[in-house]
Amino acid sequence: MKAIVYHGKEDFRYEDTPDPRLESDSDAIVRVPRPAICGSDLHLWPGGLPEGIGAAGGFAVGHEFMGVVEEAGRGLRGVKKGDRVLTSCTVGCGSCALCRRGLYSGCQVMTGGGGAGNVFGFSTGLPGGQAEAVRVPFADTNLFQVPGHLSDEQALFLTDILPTGYMGSEMAEVGPGDTVVVFGCGPVGTFAQMSALLRGAARVVAVDLDDGRLERARQLGCEAVNPSRENLGQKVLDWTGGVGADAAIEAVGREDLIVQAAMVTRPGGRIAVIGVLTAPTANLPWFMIFLKNLSLRTGLVNPQVFIPKLMRLVESGRLDPTVIISHRLPLSEGPHGYEIFAGHKENALKVILRP
Amino acid sequence: MKAIVYHGKEDFRYEDTPDPRLESDSDAIVRVPRPAICGSDLHLWPGGLPEGIGAAGGFAVGHEFMGVVEEAGRGLRGVKKGDRVLTSCTVGCGSCALCRRGLYSGCQVMTGGGGAGNVFGFSTGLPGGQAEAVRVPFADTNLFQVPGHLSDEQALFLTDILPTGYMGSEMAEVGPGDTVVVFGCGPVGTFAQMSALLRGAARVVAVDLDDGRLERARQLGCEAVNPSRENLGQKVLDWTGGVGADAAIEAVGREDLIVQAAMVTRPGGRIAVIGVLTAPTANLPWFMIFLKNLSLRTGLVNPQVFIPKLMRLVESGRLDPTVIISHRLPLSEGPHGYEIFAGHKENALKVILRP
Amino acid sequence: MKAIVYHGKEDFRYEDTPDPRLESDSDAIVRVPRPAICGSDLHLWPGGLPEGIGAAGGFAVGHEFMGVVEEAGRGLRGVKKGDRVLTSCTVGCGSCALCRRGLYSGCQVMTGGGGAGNVFGFSTGLPGGQAEAVRVPFADTNLFQVPGHLSDEQALFLTDILPTGYMGSEMAEVGPGDTVVVFGCGPVGTFAQMSALLRGAARVVAVDLDDGRLERARQLGCEAVNPSRENLGQKVLDWTGGVGADAAIEAVGREDLIVQAAMVTRPGGRIAVIGVLTAPTANLPWFMIFLKNLSLRTGLVNPQVFIPKLMRLVESGRLDPTVIISHRLPLSEGPHGYEIFAGHKENALKVILRP
Amino acid sequence: MKAIVYHGKEDFRYEDTPDPRLESDSDAIVRVPRPAICGSDLHLWPGGLPEGIGAAGGFAVGHEFMGVVEEAGRGLRGVKKGDRVLTSCTVGCGSCALCRRGLYSGCQVMTGGGGAGNVFGFSTGLPGGQAEAVRVPFADTNLFQVPGHLSDEQALFLTDILPTGYMGSEMAEVGPGDTVVVFGCGPVGTFAQMSALLRGAARVVAVDLDDGRLERARQLGCEAVNPSRENLGQKVLDWTGGVGADAAIEAVGREDLIVQAAMVTRPGGRIAVIGVLTAPTANLPWFMIFLKNLSLRTGLVNPQVFIPKLMRLVESGRLDPTVIISHRLPLSEGPHGYEIFAGHKENALKVILRP
Repeated sequence: MKAIVYHGKEDFRYEDTPDPRLESDSDAIVRVPRPAICGSDLHLWPGGLPEGIGAAGGFAVGHEFMGVVEEAGRGLRGVKKGDRVLTSCTVGCGSCALCRRGLYSGCQVMTGGGGAGNVFGFSTGLPGGQAEAVRVPFADTNLFQVPGHLSDEQALFLTDILPTGYMGSEMAEVGPGDTVVVFGCGPVGTFAQMSALLRGAARVVAVDLDDGRLERARQLGCEAVNPSRENLGQKVLDWTGGVGADAAIEAVGREDLIVQAAMVTRPGGRIAVIGVLTAPTANLPWFMIFLKNLSLRTGLVNPQVFIPKLMRLVESGRLDPTVIISHRLPLSEGPHGYEIFAGHKENALKVILRP
Repeated sequence: MKAIVYHGKEDFRYEDTPDPRLESDSDAIVRVPRPAICGSDLHLWPGGLPEGIGAAGGFAVGHEFMGVVEEAGRGLRGVKKGDRVLTSCTVGCGSCALCRRGLYSGCQVMTGGGGAGNVFGFSTGLPGGQAEAVRVPFADTNLFQVPGHLSDEQALFLTDILPTGYMGSEMAEVGPGDTVVVFGCGPVGTFAQMSALLRGAARVVAVDLDDGRLERARQLGCEAVNPSRENLGQKVLDWTGGVGADAAIEAVGREDLIVQAAMVTRPGGRIAVIGVLTAPTANLPWFMIFLKNLSLRTGLVNPQVFIPKLMRLVESGRLDPTVIISHRLPLSEGPHGYEIFAGHKENALKVILRP
Repeated sequence: MKAIVYHGKEDFRYEDTPDPRLESDSDAIVRVPRPAICGSDLHLWPGGLPEGIGAAGGFAVGHEFMGVVEEAGRGLRGVKKGDRVLTSCTVGCGSCALCRRGLYSGCQVMTGGGGAGNVFGFSTGLPGGQAEAVRVPFADTNLFQVPGHLSDEQALFLTDILPTGYMGSEMAEVGPGDTVVVFGCGPVGTFAQMSALLRGAARVVAVDLDDGRLERARQLGCEAVNPSRENLGQKVLDWTGGVGADAAIEAVGREDLIVQAAMVTRPGGRIAVIGVLTAPTANLPWFMIFLKNLSLRTGLVNPQVFIPKLMRLVESGRLDPTVIISHRLPLSEGPHGYEIFAGHKENALKVILRP
Repeated sequence: MKAIVYHGKEDFRYEDTPDPRLESDSDAIVRVPRPAICGSDLHLWPGGLPEGIGAAGGFAVGHEFMGVVEEAGRGLRGVKKGDRVLTSCTVGCGSCALCRRGLYSGCQVMTGGGGAGNVFGFSTGLPGGQAEAVRVPFADTNLFQVPGHLSDEQALFLTDILPTGYMGSEMAEVGPGDTVVVFGCGPVGTFAQMSALLRGAARVVAVDLDDGRLERARQLGCEAVNPSRENLGQKVLDWTGGVGADAAIEAVGREDLIVQAAMVTRPGGRIAVIGVLTAPTANLPWFMIFLKNLSLRTGLVNPQVFIPKLMRLVESGRLDPTVIISHRLPLSEGPHGYEIFAGHKENALKVILRP
């Protein structure tokens, strides 16, 4: 079959790769009509992540996709051929000590309790879904039925970035009346903003250097600040009676933005970092964090936990995830999609592919 | 001064009553330009509440009001003459064991830990605010500054019914993706609906027998059900894939609606009762509640806890409490206001008075 | 095989009953060396529970047991022949909407979302474990491995009453420094007391009419009150500086004790009812509950949620559930066990059976 | 009066200093029979903390003390001459936006929302309590009555280190069944261990290089590990079935121990840092923290929040804070106390002073 295959730094190719097949009774094969390119796919662009994740290459990429079940392992109870399904980007076995705690991203069976080995499209062990088909292990746990009246595009982002953005608002414990600063107006930042509003924030402050992205944030109901010409700290103090923001969400993946998040947050505030820092370590202003009694949380998303409730919100019309789509390309043009997304060209915000 | 004074069953009069004066260094006198008639004032209409609350009569009524500080006790730190303030309807000392836990409605100093003696307008000890002026004890704890750009009407409902409606959504632990049934579309029910949406409910089901009230609920974003001609239970099952509602809020004050709330709620669901049942006891379907693992919560509101966050939401424009105002009358016509409100006349939903 | 079979009011017999066999690939057959008689088995004694639960008779009873896997369905991943296991008393499928929320007792597959049909030993559909062997559906979800160094008796009570008692402390939100009143010093009450202490309560007040049981509570670290000769309400006020208890746990199953629980609890307190009331309805002092801002919670236990953490506490020696065992009888003497337990004879607190 | 006065690096002197006097109606003067030297006093030993805190010198030190009210400002309601009281080490006004949120350590009135200016004994503005008397601002908020049957020594540690140790267990969200690793067996680490056990941890692992301190931890019920000769990581994996600790508490104040805490903690675990790092920044293994979905919390303690519940635990005998006292010296020998505590001499764990 055809797929987008990663071959190393800045080298993504549309080419033939082996068809997936059932390797266990709990696997399913999903025919993939609709994958997307996720911001975290771009971590492969410069050559992979710390701890050697993704470095080897030679596998189909993509962890954001939905499709139709083509073949269902005999051990499956909830999934059958023909089901229209979406996938969780992280794969859990559903019954180890960590999956039982809802920590599917740390699934002991898939990862040994340690790493990111259970995200689609980062290794030959778990090839990705920017392909004509993909194998999904433990499909009862990792596939979710899509209600008939939801379109493919409405369902697609439930696999990763909508849960990731939402997770930011939960890790930052956003609640009614809060002032929340969200750093970054890309796809994940946008969903973090929408989630913070959904959870009752009084004010969501969107921060970005791109005025076009800020304008979209404003239309979603955010205050927008471009720190290249506005004083973010002062504006937050003005909005909060001199107290500071209740919470901040970093949705870019930069150490200096965590520092800024700590600066704009009030004593007792909460910081969620959902952007992925690609360096092994980060140097943080700990004494300030201490004096201000801050909490910091970060982590890989566990869509299995969030999909049911977010699906209900998409179904009822309260969340519309399609607002972020900027490009729709055929799968064969996937490599071009990577180029414009990685290079911030053509105002690319979210690229969807069609096999 | 002039005030609306309660004299017993169905007998509210506009008449002279003694001017309030400072009785302690921590009191303030508030000149009241804008009181409202609250649904719980109506509990006096038939002659008071259980345990003899309000039965005696002879006091100014009204626990929902805002105004301007006319005189501030010498011990006050945060309140001074001329401040534009709103009041909490329950009065707490701020430093007893229960106030320290946020349970101002059970303040040991004001009530002896027991009853409703600390709500304005139910006894001669704490006359109400449907008057030209009122004494507010422990004013540092019970008065809140109103920001200059908020109108009187925007601020007014923060004293009782907006916090009460919001409390329902908090007691019912409403969260993102929930389906929530709200019984009653009166002022408190309306605020419970708005609060449930604000906290991220996927669907809020408004239940009432009055189609006009249902239409307003629909405009706020609710599903509307008139049980006189629709099958509420079946509709809730349809909306929830056969599971039942995650939460229900009773905002009328009737035993049979608590039973209905238990029936439409899913196993593990939460029920908040913010309507005031005026009988001493209630007969509940306990075996069903047991089999369904339900939680029930009720109580007097503690606006002191909720005012700061709700005020931020009104300030930022996310909550508009003025939608419920149906009548504006001069204070002298207060007795007429009680009549139309108690008698469900002239589509009265919320009556505001002007001294 | 031999089992204790229920035939109607006060009629439990030791007799032959059909051997269990696998009915699905996800079933397991467990050979049962060690069942116990649970207080809730006694609900059958007078002829069953509301809604006709248990009324028919003709089935092996018992929902508290552990044993060894004799046969494992082919679809099982975590359970195999020879495993030493304990069972959850409520059976869940593990993947319906309610099981995914941790509400196994309301499993839609086993119960249709409604009742107690998924507790062992209350119907012919799910015969109980006071037998030589028993069929366990969805065994991956409902069986738990017992570590080798735990004795049968240490593990046994994890199937029902230890989780039930612990659930009381969680439903009552017991935390460090709390004063907690536990009504009843039977097996479940004892475990509720131990759990409240474990969660950091400053004082646990054990209430019972039996001085022997009170003495055991005292040895566990509780204050003990016999209301037949002591004023419980006054003692609680004395212990709490006049405020009242932070939480109360009803572990008997009587309406009047829920009323007492509401009376001794402070404003803002929490009441958990883990005793089973066998009437369909209960008449509660709602106006007092309202004025005191109380929360009430009740429900069937979901041991699947609690077993892992409680097992770790038994393993580390912090909880010793064997303290409640009063009688060890051969299975054939099960009917006698029921008699002494139901009749409060021979100081029976907990009767264990040996096949 | 006499006091221990700080004059710069390693220079603490017993000398005359001006008597404190009421500066506001809400102040109280407390005669201090019983101060202690706290580990955080030692941050002055090398010359102060980041941001210039404490650098200037010339003030009485000590933020851990209890005593008797000698003079009460006229505005006080809850405090009067002759009361036996303990103090919170951080001073809050009780009514600013941050105090209302329970963040007394960030009190806007005392600190401008920023720093540690509201801890006794770090500036001339708020001299400390290793003195014959001390001024306590906002005494209604910052003083707590000591029940008559508690000894001075039992009450003393409620001012700082018992709440600080307890806060670690709360920030790390320690709950029933958890495995918790506590780095450091000094006074704060010891209280963190006791608190983790109190909150129901199945296993508390105490880590230190001092075998004497480890032995005391063992007597409190902890597992003890000396990493100079034992493999901490492996032992934690053994105790947790290969999963890792649920929570870790750093109670020393060293960057490398935060790294170790992240290493021994399981995916989804929680880390609390209650040791004070005296460098402005800390370099953390962020990518590991991200892959493991960890949360990090730190901060200055707010004893006002914790004192009531911890006092109840000391009263009921469930917590005995006096176990850490190693030395009792007259106030005049305070400088010697600093020397042995700072130099780890004479097995000094906690030094108490007597004026």
